[in-house]
Amino acid sequence: MSPVVTAAAARRSAEEQAQFDHALRTLFEEHIAFNRVLGLEIVSVEPGNVRGSFDMRPELVGSSLHGRLHGGVVSSVLDAMAGLALMVEIGASRPTESMQQVLHRFARMGTIDLRIDFLRQGIGRRFDATAEVTRLGGRIGSVQMALHNDEGRLIATGAAAYVLA
Amino acid sequence: MSPVVTAAAARRSAEEQAQFDHALRTLFEEHIAFNRVLGLEIVSVEPGNVRGSFDMRPELVGSSLHGRLHGGVVSSVLDAMAGLALMVEIGASRPTESMQQVLHRFARMGTIDLRIDFLRQGIGRRFDATAEVTRLGGRIGSVQMALHNDEGRLIATGAAAYVLA
Amino acid sequence: MSPVVTAAAARRSAEEQAQFDHALRTLFEEHIAFNRVLGLEIVSVEPGNVRGSFDMRPELVGSSLHGRLHGGVVSSVLDAMAGLALMVEIGASRPTESMQQVLHRFARMGTIDLRIDFLRQGIGRRFDATAEVTRLGGRIGSVQMALHNDEGRLIATGAAAYVLA
Amino acid sequence: MSPVVTAAAARRSAEEQAQFDHALRTLFEEHIAFNRVLGLEIVSVEPGNVRGSFDMRPELVGSSLHGRLHGGVVSSVLDAMAGLALMVEIGASRPTESMQQVLHRFARMGTIDLRIDFLRQGIGRRFDATAEVTRLGGRIGSVQMALHNDEGRLIATGAAAYVLA
Repeated sequence: MSPVVTAAAARRSAEEQAQFDHALRTLFEEHIAFNRVLGLEIVSVEPGNVRGSFDMRPELVGSSLHGRLHGGVVSSVLDAMAGLALMVEIGASRPTESMQQVLHRFARMGTIDLRIDFLRQGIGRRFDATAEVTRLGGRIGSVQMALHNDEGRLIATGAAAYVLA
Repeated sequence: MSPVVTAAAARRSAEEQAQFDHALRTLFEEHIAFNRVLGLEIVSVEPGNVRGSFDMRPELVGSSLHGRLHGGVVSSVLDAMAGLALMVEIGASRPTESMQQVLHRFARMGTIDLRIDFLRQGIGRRFDATAEVTRLGGRIGSVQMALHNDEGRLIATGAAAYVLA
Repeated sequence: MSPVVTAAAARRSAEEQAQFDHALRTLFEEHIAFNRVLGLEIVSVEPGNVRGSFDMRPELVGSSLHGRLHGGVVSSVLDAMAGLALMVEIGASRPTESMQQVLHRFARMGTIDLRIDFLRQGIGRRFDATAEVTRLGGRIGSVQMALHNDEGRLIATGAAAYVLA
Repeated sequence: MSPVVTAAAARRSAEEQAQFDHALRTLFEEHIAFNRVLGLEIVSVEPGNVRGSFDMRPELVGSSLHGRLHGGVVSSVLDAMAGLALMVEIGASRPTESMQQVLHRFARMGTIDLRIDFLRQGIGRRFDATAEVTRLGGRIGSVQMALHNDEGRLIATGAAAYVLA
C-alpha cells in the first residue's frame, strides 16, 4: 500500500470509509449506464486492490463462431476499472475531504487515452478485471489493467492515462 | 484507392460485390451481438471509405452528470470499425476468392492491440465512425480510426493492429 | 489552419515571428542533445505544417542485416516532432506572450504517453517526419505523427499525449 | 518460469546455453548500432528475468534545463529490451534448434507497435530496464517493459507487440 493510502486509512473512520465505498459502488454500478450493460460488478475497492468481475452473456459476444468476448467489452471493462482504481486512490489520498468534494473530483476526471493488448481469446463463463495505479499526480493519473478468465488465464492487459483536474 | 482495390473492382462483378457487401453487413450488424448493443450501423463499405454510425442512447452514457458517451462505447465502436475496414480491404484484395473463403479469413482475424485517444467529450445525438487501413500485409493489418459527432467535431481517434492469418 | 493560428498570425509581427521560429529551431536542434544524435533538422514550423527530416546514418541502424532504422530512432523522432508541433501551436495560440513566457511553457511540457505503429521497414537515405496537433486544451495536448522515407512510403505513424501546464 | 522455459533448460546443455547467451549479447550490444549509441548493456538474459541497464550521458539528455532523459531514449531502450526478452523466450522455447535457426528467427522478428507511458522524469545516474513476455504465440509476441532509475523509482512502463515469423 502506498503511504498515501495508509495516511487515508489513518484519517477516515471505518464508518466514513464504508459510506465512501458504498457511494463509489453505487456511482460505478448504477449511475454509469454502460457499466450495467456490461454487467460489471465491483468485487474490491481497497486501495492497491481494485477488482471487478462480470459474467459472459450472449450480448457481450464478438464472434458468434467462437463465442468469445467482443474486443470492445474487454476495452470497456478495463477502461472502467482503471477509472475506478483512480477514484479509489484519490479517495484514499484525500481523507479529509467530504464525499461531495471527492465525488466532484470524479466528475472532472477524464480518460486521455487507452491501450489494450488482446493476448488470448476472451473465452470463459466469468471474467475478473484488476487495475493498478502507477502514477497519481496532481494533474495526470496512469493505470495498468488486466483481465483474467475464470480459469486464471490472462486474456488482456491495458494501460490508460487520465486527466484528474 | 489502392491498386489492390481497383484490381478488385475490376475482377468482381457488381452483383457479386453487392452480395459480398450484404454478407459483410449482415455479419457485422447482426451476427456480432455486441455491435447490436452499440446500435452500430454500416453506412459505407467501399474500400477506402468505410463508415458507420450510431445514435446516442441512454444505455451508452458513461457519465449521467454530463450525458456523454462511455469511453468503452467509443473504444468498442472504433475497434469494430477497424475490423470492418480490414474485412473490406481483404475482400477487395482477394477478388477471385469465394465469399466462403473470404468469410473464413474474417473468422481467423484477431485484434492484437488498440489505442484510443479521447480528444473531446462524447456529446451528440448521433456519431459517425470512420476507419482507414494503413497496412494490409500478409500477416498484420494496421488501421487508423476517427469518431465525429453530428456537429462534425472530432471526438476520438484510434489506432489498432490485427493479425490476419 | 485553426482560428487560433490565424489569430496569432494577425497578432505577432513577421519579425517577432521570425525571432520566435529561430529560438524554437535553436532550442530543438541544438539544446536538445539527443536530437543532435538523431540528426533531426526542422524543415517547417508553420502552424498546421510542422515538418522535420534526418538522414540515414550507420549509428541509426537497428538491424545490420537489413540496414533499416532502429525502432527507437523512429519513436524518438516522432516523439520529438510531436513536442515541436505542440510548441508551434502554443506559440501561435499565445501571440501576446513574450518569448520568455512561451519558452517557459515548453519547459513545463511533458510527454504523458506515446504510441508508434511500425508499418514498413525503415529503409531509405533520408526520412521525413510530420506532426499534427489534434487537441490543444488548457491541460492536455494530443498529436498524431507520420514518418515517410525519401520514396514517399509511409514507414510509421504515431500518437502522443502531452501535459501542457 | 513458464513450462516452455523449464523444457528448454532441460534440453540445452549449460555450455550450449552459455554460447547462445553470448551470441545474443554480442548481437544485441555490438551488432545493433543504435544500442551502442544508447550505451545499453545486457545484465541478465535468463528467461523470465531479462534486464539491461545504461548510464546517463550528456547526449541522452532531452531537456538541458532539467538534465533528464530524452523521451526517445526511454522508448528506444524499452523497445530494444522487449525485443531481447522475446529473443530469450524464443531461444528457450526452441531448445532443439541450432543457434543459426534461432538467430534466423530473430532476423525475421519485427515490432508491430509500441506504447510508452512516461510516469516520472528520467532523472538518475544509471537506469535499469526490464521486459516480461506476456504472450509468445506462433505469430505474435507481446511484452511489457519497465524502466527504473538508480533510486528504484519507476520512470516509465511500456507495452509492445511483435510479429515473430
